[in-house]
Formats: sequence, structure tokens, C-alpha cells
Amino acid sequence: MVIVMRSEATGADVEAIVSVVRTAGVEAFVSRGVQRTIVGLVGDVTQLDATSLRGMAGVRDVMRVSTPYKLVSRENHPERSTVHVGGVPIGPDTVTLIAGPCAVETHEQTLAAARMAQSAGAVLLRGGAYKPRTSPYAFQGLGEKGLRILADVREETGMPIVTEVVDARDVATVAAYADMLQVGTRNMQNFALLQEVGAAGRPVMLKRGMTATIEEWLMAAEYIAQRGNLDIVLCERGVRTYETATRNTLDVSAVPVAQRLSHLPVIIDPSHSGGRRDLVLPLTRAAIAVGADGVIIDVHPRPEQALCDGPQALVDADLGELAQIMTDFPALLGKAPATV
Amino acid sequence: MVIVMRSEATGADVEAIVSVVRTAGVEAFVSRGVQRTIVGLVGDVTQLDATSLRGMAGVRDVMRVSTPYKLVSRENHPERSTVHVGGVPIGPDTVTLIAGPCAVETHEQTLAAARMAQSAGAVLLRGGAYKPRTSPYAFQGLGEKGLRILADVREETGMPIVTEVVDARDVATVAAYADMLQVGTRNMQNFALLQEVGAAGRPVMLKRGMTATIEEWLMAAEYIAQRGNLDIVLCERGVRTYETATRNTLDVSAVPVAQRLSHLPVIIDPSHSGGRRDLVLPLTRAAIAVGADGVIIDVHPRPEQALCDGPQALVDADLGELAQIMTDFPALLGKAPATV
Amino acid sequence: MVIVMRSEATGADVEAIVSVVRTAGVEAFVSRGVQRTIVGLVGDVTQLDATSLRGMAGVRDVMRVSTPYKLVSRENHPERSTVHVGGVPIGPDTVTLIAGPCAVETHEQTLAAARMAQSAGAVLLRGGAYKPRTSPYAFQGLGEKGLRILADVREETGMPIVTEVVDARDVATVAAYADMLQVGTRNMQNFALLQEVGAAGRPVMLKRGMTATIEEWLMAAEYIAQRGNLDIVLCERGVRTYETATRNTLDVSAVPVAQRLSHLPVIIDPSHSGGRRDLVLPLTRAAIAVGADGVIIDVHPRPEQALCDGPQALVDADLGELAQIMTDFPALLGKAPATV
Amino acid sequence: MVIVMRSEATGADVEAIVSVVRTAGVEAFVSRGVQRTIVGLVGDVTQLDATSLRGMAGVRDVMRVSTPYKLVSRENHPERSTVHVGGVPIGPDTVTLIAGPCAVETHEQTLAAARMAQSAGAVLLRGGAYKPRTSPYAFQGLGEKGLRILADVREETGMPIVTEVVDARDVATVAAYADMLQVGTRNMQNFALLQEVGAAGRPVMLKRGMTATIEEWLMAAEYIAQRGNLDIVLCERGVRTYETATRNTLDVSAVPVAQRLSHLPVIIDPSHSGGRRDLVLPLTRAAIAVGADGVIIDVHPRPEQALCDGPQALVDADLGELAQIMTDFPALLGKAPATV
Repeated sequence: MVIVMRSEATGADVEAIVSVVRTAGVEAFVSRGVQRTIVGLVGDVTQLDATSLRGMAGVRDVMRVSTPYKLVSRENHPERSTVHVGGVPIGPDTVTLIAGPCAVETHEQTLAAARMAQSAGAVLLRGGAYKPRTSPYAFQGLGEKGLRILADVREETGMPIVTEVVDARDVATVAAYADMLQVGTRNMQNFALLQEVGAAGRPVMLKRGMTATIEEWLMAAEYIAQRGNLDIVLCERGVRTYETATRNTLDVSAVPVAQRLSHLPVIIDPSHSGGRRDLVLPLTRAAIAVGADGVIIDVHPRPEQALCDGPQALVDADLGELAQIMTDFPALLGKAPATV
Repeated sequence: MVIVMRSEATGADVEAIVSVVRTAGVEAFVSRGVQRTIVGLVGDVTQLDATSLRGMAGVRDVMRVSTPYKLVSRENHPERSTVHVGGVPIGPDTVTLIAGPCAVETHEQTLAAARMAQSAGAVLLRGGAYKPRTSPYAFQGLGEKGLRILADVREETGMPIVTEVVDARDVATVAAYADMLQVGTRNMQNFALLQEVGAAGRPVMLKRGMTATIEEWLMAAEYIAQRGNLDIVLCERGVRTYETATRNTLDVSAVPVAQRLSHLPVIIDPSHSGGRRDLVLPLTRAAIAVGADGVIIDVHPRPEQALCDGPQALVDADLGELAQIMTDFPALLGKAPATV
Repeated sequence: MVIVMRSEATGADVEAIVSVVRTAGVEAFVSRGVQRTIVGLVGDVTQLDATSLRGMAGVRDVMRVSTPYKLVSRENHPERSTVHVGGVPIGPDTVTLIAGPCAVETHEQTLAAARMAQSAGAVLLRGGAYKPRTSPYAFQGLGEKGLRILADVREETGMPIVTEVVDARDVATVAAYADMLQVGTRNMQNFALLQEVGAAGRPVMLKRGMTATIEEWLMAAEYIAQRGNLDIVLCERGVRTYETATRNTLDVSAVPVAQRLSHLPVIIDPSHSGGRRDLVLPLTRAAIAVGADGVIIDVHPRPEQALCDGPQALVDADLGELAQIMTDFPALLGKAPATV
Repeated sequence: MVIVMRSEATGADVEAIVSVVRTAGVEAFVSRGVQRTIVGLVGDVTQLDATSLRGMAGVRDVMRVSTPYKLVSRENHPERSTVHVGGVPIGPDTVTLIAGPCAVETHEQTLAAARMAQSAGAVLLRGGAYKPRTSPYAFQGLGEKGLRILADVREETGMPIVTEVVDARDVATVAAYADMLQVGTRNMQNFALLQEVGAAGRPVMLKRGMTATIEEWLMAAEYIAQRGNLDIVLCERGVRTYETATRNTLDVSAVPVAQRLSHLPVIIDPSHSGGRRDLVLPLTRAAIAVGADGVIIDVHPRPEQALCDGPQALVDADLGELAQIMTDFPALLGKAPATV
């Protein structure tokens, strides 16, 4: 059950609701969005009287959860949302270019990559300090040291930071540095992590699981939303198929489908889906053309030395064309490149 | 083994080669392309002496088949090819819009769909007279009666015809009416059919099998090429995944990958991949943006009455936006909309 | 629409039905099974009056086709069927071992493989004379010469023959030699071929398409049944997944699922699913244990010289264990090894 | 890099190694197995001198990690391992039946399910107190209260407990009650969780990710092993395909393939793979026949009231047949049913 508060509802109104609900043995999660506050209920709600709740001060609506996701659904929220990351919008009116190194290795490399990203029009910096790696013998990231490098580079470039968190116990640390928390494809159904980032007070980028259906993806987003955080951006990054010429198969259809089902912004990662540098620009064009609200791209000053996913990083020679795509394509969709 | 003839080689030169080869117990297939003639050999070629063959009149090169496909490979044919269908080009310089009804039902319906197609910029007419249907109880097409309707509508509209052939025994009949033969996704590895269309003297559109790898797709094209027909257009139409929100998952990456491996043009079918009308235009934009050399789209004057795949057909209200896409997008890729 | 005749219906009864139906412009296919004759109707049946048809002599039932397959469904045929191949049963009471070389290469090799097969308990001989190959440069089989070798080996060993047909135009030729026609995985939706083998008067083994759903598989069987042939054996041979350690992924669940939906026997091909010799015996055990009515296995006297799929063929050293499996496992399922 | 100690190596020998390694800035994880102690190194090992290490007291071997997994590989450990759970073996000589309710709901339901399990021959009790659910609105398990119920039922029945842990922060709590920790399919690449269970001092059952390759599965096991825990049992539970008749597609081939690559025991979950009660017994037979070292099965006294996965639970009427399978099948593989 979900209680939607009126925009003019006060903090006291919300507290009164929560108190009533908890008395009935039901857990309540308060979600304070820009437009409205939502109280999500988990537990045995059969003892709650929807009619009485609807009569309480500040309550606009009480909805039984019939569809498998509610807070992220477009059904009750027909207008598509815009999520702001350090002031940068991701939403229906813009195409936001996010770029940076796959993994943070050194300050010098991260700064160089950030400058590359900016020269192509990027307004948010991506970079991993915690890397989920299939093999325990692969480079796992610099951890908090990497976060500090990212914060320094933000200082120098003015670019807000998007970075991954892989462990529920690290959420507070990562949130202390990052402007946006990324949940990776392998963690899309790590429900403990989803709940923790839902409570962290930062926008979240939720990558689609590499074989998740769109419905499962939206239910994973609902886990985050239920903890009070509606600032969620969905990121399609390719699904697993039998094809071996590409690492994964980018599912561009997922963008219009998810945008129709959910009010959340949807972006595309053309770097990880193909896993090949020569596919990044064609897939970026396709991403914007299909209606994505942004793209997130790997760039690296020296990809041959990268500790992670070098073969898919764009290099200096690619940036002019990327900038041109950002100039040409968004306008055809009635969108503008996002700016700081 | 493949023997590539010089452009100035005569028919007698080719015959001499074939005669030598057959004497050695090896089968020879002559492929007379616009640019050059190729003789493909099948059988035990160990008794043939490549050096002697190379010395024969008119021979430019003798290649051992090391990669799994040769004639369609870009390795020996670095320039991308243009295929002409009734005078309409499909190739690297253009984006060709092919449209029409999924199935030919009546003359009136086919003509109406063709007029719709033309109004959106289509220069080739698609329409099925023979329909491969999963269920034996579904409408299987009008057969030759449908071909006659297509021919009549070509007469009235000036649009060359693309139509499917599903049985090797029907190839001659279909080729008598059609400007381009289509091999459908279920028949991509129907090798008897591939060989027959390879010998039919008509350009062929080869749809990717619904779970074929790109390599298997190119090897299927090689079957056609080996029978002397290099006028092949590859068509990506979505692959089978676990996702249920769309009928299949359009694999846009297949376009740049196939264009890199093969000199053949590659187009996209945004109608059958998604199976939903609301996805056709977004996927058309993605198709052109990723670099497809054309798109093939279902249109229907009254989709609610269609005998086949009505839910995915574009209607009148969509055509203005489709025409706009054809105006806006090709230029960004350095291409022009194909014209008659 | 499907008309089921009474067991005591005469040929004249059937002809009368067909005549009425054709007069209404609907095609009728007569299926004379052991237990009953069925008339399948294709076309616009709206003008037919089911009640009148039901009143005609010899008619037991007239069924509208509501489920996508009818003749092969277990709904109207609750007892599971037994198909006889040259006197050898494949059905619910037995486990039938079919074995032989993947491809017929020489008389000597085929005979040796047949003797190997017999020594392990095989009662039907498999062997391909027409091979559908992904590459046009791979060995395509000996054709009719291979069929003659098979017929000779049948003479010498007494084993009825199962062999593949890949082209609708070859059906009559293959049927002249073979005891059972095999339709391969790539041809499961080659509807022209299905219809032709449906009319050939021989039992058919229908392999599941490598990414077909079970429902599509049963609909493909329905195409065969509709042409009057209910002697169909379904063969599961692995489906395509992202796993690369095996060629395909054997779907053992398909056996009980298909047996529940259809009355047709279901067997398993453990050789082609795994594509590895070391998996053949474990998968054979799993096949019998899950309830398969038979297994079809590659054996080769010298697999390192095989022209096709050598790495998966069993060799002499494996035959004792195979024979032991055939002795031990069927009894646990209440079945007996099939004998001639 | 991995350092394998001699069986007679002392604790001081190990400490000396660790000290040397850490001085070089490399992390060392000590794995004390029954047969030998292993020191896994993570980080930049280029500064370490393998020859010097090999010369240190107690060292048997120093291996560079060339294959992607080492500790779980069969290459360096040719004999297949047996893992003991509360005294019950899971390994090459036995087939271990694990059964119980999908989710712990009440003491009464759990005890009833345990008695059902025992009557069919089960020697370990499964039951979930923490349930990873796709929807945040679904029953998430009783948490520690559920663990206490399991412990009580263990007391009453003598069955050691297998239960899932879904959050790295809960590992200590769950390990305090459980005899074996289960890592579920959605968490197979939750590396923080893998590392935590690796350090928990309990045997671990690692379910295969629903679209993980076998190699990725073994690398996930390597994460656990690297933290000093080689008591790992692999559990195949079906992979995601396009088939809709079953929830997932059980990959029986994964058992012999994983047993060949790794020394770890491999079991099968026939309940969650098919998701249908009518498939559980056929798949159990297939599991034992293919060589699985155990099966884990859902049973429920009243599945129609189950809070989780009721439709797949076996009921009383099925238990006799399950017991019969456990009596008949293991012996054919040279195995015995595991006993307490």
C-alpha cells in the first residue's frame, strides 16, 4: 500500500501517518520527492483501513499495490521526471553526456579523462573506485582512495561525479563523495544494496541486469523508490544473448518501452553493451535517436594501459565525432544537450 | 576454393576454367557480378593446382577459403556494395525506405498501403503473397494471386516489388513477378532455398535467423553468393531473448558489425523486431542513426482487419513523422534518402 | 477446423465429407491414423456449418481449432502413441536406441558404425546422406549414393534406417530408401518440407528448432499431421543459450512437458546437444531417467577421420557402458529396451 | 598468485609467508582446508619473487594464476572433494537429498515440512528465513525469527540446516544458526557477500546465476575459496531462456562439465528450475542419472497456502515416489544415498 501526500502536507502530517501505520505493525518508508511525499508500506496491511487513512490530514491518495511496481510507474505519474545530479538535469528535455574512465587509476589519468570528456560535451564525470570483477584476481578498484581522486577532479573540472557502489556497507562512504550512486548490472537484484542506496539521499543510476526483463528492472527501481528516493535514472547496458561478436546485445527498444511504463529517465551505456570501441559512436547515435535521455561513455587517455575494459574506451581521435553527435542528434528529438 | 576473374575476362575464359575444374571432379558455380565474375568450387579441391589455375587466361586470383565466408566478405572487397532493385539503390550512399502491407490481402488494400508507403517516401513496395506461419491454421497468403496483385500495384505506382519466397519450388514463379526475393528469418538456413534464389537472377533480401549469429548469417549469404548472385541485402529483424515486452529484441549493433565484416548492404526491419506499432518510429530512427542502409516497414490502411501482424503496422497518422525522419536523419550520416 | 471420423467410418464417408468441404472453397487434408481418420480443414471455414457436418455419416466429432495445435495434442488423444519404424516401436512402453554415423561416408564406415550400434543395443540405424551445413564449403553429404549405402547396410544388419531430408524436392527419393524421415533443427519451420514429409507415407522424426519454444515445435508437428501423417516422433536436441562450454544446452524438461501436451513419443539426441563425446553417456542416462522414449546417438569407427561432427561420436570403448545403461535404466521407468 | 602449503606446515610457517607478502604491498588470504592450507594473493604480485617464496619453510608450491580460477579447479586437485554439513557428506560417493519449505513461515509448517522431507530420505533441511524477492511488495522472509524456527526444528528432527543469506551484514547472524550458508542465484556475483561467506567458517552452497556461464560460476566460487573456505557445493538451478513453459531451463550438462573443471561437489535444484510440481520428480531422476551429488527440493504441507513458490512444492502424495528414486537411482551410478 502506498500513501501519496498532498504537496501542501506538513512534516507533522507525515509523522502522524507513520505513527498510525507503525502502531498497526506495518513498516513505513517516507519518500520526500520534489513534487510530493510518498509513504510506502510493507507488511501485513490488511489491518489498516484505507478509508480512515484517506481521511487523515495531508493525504491525497491511498493506493493498493496492484501492478508489481507503483512508485516508479507512469500510471500514477504521467509526466516524465527529471533527475538533477549536482545541478545537471537528466530527463525528457535533454540528452546528458556522462563520460570518464571505466576505473579510476591515478589522479593524472582521471583528470586527463575528465578533460577529454568535457571536450566532447560531457557534463557529468563517470569513474569507478569500486569495481565488481568476475574474477577475484582482477583489479578491484582503488576504493576510498579512488573516491578522493574523483572529488579532486570534480574540484578541478566542475563536473559532478557518478560512481558505483557494490556493497551495502560502503554506501555511506561513497555517498559522502559522489553526486550520483551507480548500481551495476550484477547488483540489480542485490536487494540489500538497493534499499541502502534508496536511503542514501543521492540520485541513483540503476543499470539493467544483464538478463533482467524490463519488468524486473522496474521492480528493482521500486526497491529504491520505496526507501524514499525517486531520483532514479535507469540505464540500459546490453543483455546477454548467444551472439559472440559483441560482449552483450544493446536492447534499444528497452528505452521507449521503459519510458512508457515508468516516469523515470532512461539512458544508454554504449561502451559496456558492445564492448568494442568501434561500436561506441554508432550505438551512441542509435541511443539518442531512439529517445534516450543520456549516454554514459568510457574514455581513457591511454586505453592500451587501462586496468579495466580498455578495448572499449574512446580515445582523443573519437571526441570530435562524439561532440558532433551531441550537436546534431538531440535537436531532432526536440531535446537539447544538457549543460551544467 | 574461389577463383576471381579479371573484369576483362571473356565467357570463354570462364568456360575453360569450369571445364578444367569439373574434369577434376569438383563442382564449379559461376557468379557473374557487375564488377567481376567469380567461380566458386565445392568438393575435394586437393587435386587442383592453384598455381596452374592462376596462370589461366582471365584469372585475377585464386583464393583458398580460410574464413568461413569469402564472396560476401569485405576482406577481398573493401568497398561496400550497392544493390539495385528495379533501379532503386540500396547501399552506402543512401537510406532506402521499403514499405507496404505484411500480407497481400486484396488489390484495394495493397494499392492503399502502397500509396501510404509512397507518401512517407518509400521507393520499394513490400508485401507477402506466401506467408510462413507458425501455425498451420493461420492465413498462409494468396500465393500467385497475391503476386499478380503486387504486379498490378507496381504498374499503378511505379514501385518495384520485394516479396518473400518460402519454397525452393516456387522460386521461378516468384522471380517472374518480383524485383527482389526475400528469404525470411525461419528460412535463413533452408539451404535448398538459398541455393535456388542464388540462381534466380534477382536481388535477394536475406533476413537474419531469429537466433542466428552474425557469422551464420554471412555464411547463409555465402550460399546465395556461391550460386552466382552477389546482389544480396542483409536484413536485421530482431533476435530471440527472454524479454517478453517486445516480440524480439532488435540488435542494432549487428548493422555496424556486419558492415565491417561484409561488403553487402544491411537494412533493418523495425516492424517485426518489436512487434508493436508504438516502437516502429523510435526503432526506425535508431536504425538510420546506427548506419543502416535502409528500413523495411509494415503499413496497413486498416490494421485492425489485417490478416497478419496488424498490431505492428503503421497507420496514416504515423506517416508524416516517418517522412520527417527520412528527411532529417540520413543527412546526418552523409547519406541521402534513396529515390527511384 | 478438424473433423474426427468414427473408427467404423468408411472411405466413402470420408470422401463425402471432403467433397462438401471443398465445395465451400475450403481445403481438406485426410489423415488416416491407426486408430481413426481425421480431416483437417484449412481456409475460410466460416461458411461451413459445424452442425450439419456433425450429422454426416461416420463423423464422430467436429472441433474448432482453439488451441494452436489439435491433431498432435493430448487433449483429444489422452493415450500416448507408439510409432513403428520398420517394425521397431518408439513409444511409452519402450526406450528405443537409435545409433549410427552422423554422416554416411563409405559403405565400410557405415557398416562398421552399424555393427558398433548393434553391439550397444541399437535397433534403428541413423546416418545422414543429405547434411545441412552452416558453411557452403563444408561436406554436404553423399546424396542418393549415401541412401544406397544405407539400404545396403540395412540389408546386412536388419536395422531399419532413419535419415534426414533437407529439401522438399528430395522427399520422394529419400522416402524410397528410408524407414523414417528426419527433419532437422534448421528445418523445423521449413513449412514446405513439413507438408511434403507429411504426405510421404513414412514415419517422421521432427527435431526441435534450436531456439523453438515447445509450442512452436508442436505446431510444426501439426503441419505434418495435417497432411495425414500422425506417425511423428519429437526429438529434443538442445537449445541455444549463452553458454559456451557446450554446443547447445540440452533441455531435458522438454520431454515431460511435451509428453504432457502431446500424445507423440519424445526422444533425445545427447550427441548434438552437448557436442562433446564426454557428455554423451551422462546425457543418455539423464534422457532415459527423465522419461524419454528413446535416444539417438552418433557412433563412428574412426571419429578423428569423420567428415562431420567427429568430436561428439562415441567410439568402441564407450559401447559397453552404453549397453549397460540400456540394460539398467529403462526398467526403473517401467519401460523395456525396444527390440526388433 | 597462490601459495600451497605442505600438509605438515605449521601456523608459524604460514604467518611468515603472509608477513613477507604484505610487506610487498600485496594482500594475502589464508585458506585452511582439511587437506592443506592455501595462501591466495591479490594485488600487484610482480614485485614478489616466486623462487624465494618457494624456498620458504612449509611451502609446497607457488602457482601463478593462469586459468581464471585456481583453488576450485580440478587441475591442481584431481580428486573430487566431499563437503560435510553437520556430519552429512555431499560428494562423489553419495547422493544427498536436501528438502524443506521454500520459506519458513511458522514452526508448525517448518516441522511438518521437515518430517515430510525425512520420510522421503532427506538428511539436510532447507528453508529460507531471508528471501530475495523480485518485488519489494512480496513476502521477504521472517529474518532471525525464521532462523530460530529452523534451529528448533533441527533440534526436533536432527537435520542440519541449509539456509540462504542475502546481505553481507547478515552473514554472522545466519552463520550462528545455520550448518550451511546458501548464496542464491541473484547473488552469485554479489562479490561482497561471497567474500563474507568465504570467511564465515561454514560450508557454502553456491547457486549458479540464472544466466551465468559455468566459468563465471566457478570464478564466483573462487571468491569464496580465496577467503579460506573450500567447503563449497555448486548448485545448478536452471538458466534463463526464451522458453515459457518452464520458469527456467535446467542445464543438466552443467553437472558433468563443472565436475570435470572443478573438484567441488555439484547438486541440482529441480524445484526452482522448472517451477512446476509435475516436473520435480522427472528432473530429480535426470539429476541423479547425470551424476549430480545431491538434489535440493521444495516440500510443503499445504502448498496452496505457501507464501513463496507454492506451485512447485512436492506434497505428501509425491514422497513415496521420491523415496523410491533415492533407493533406485544412486546405485546405478556407484553412489549411495547420503545418511546422517
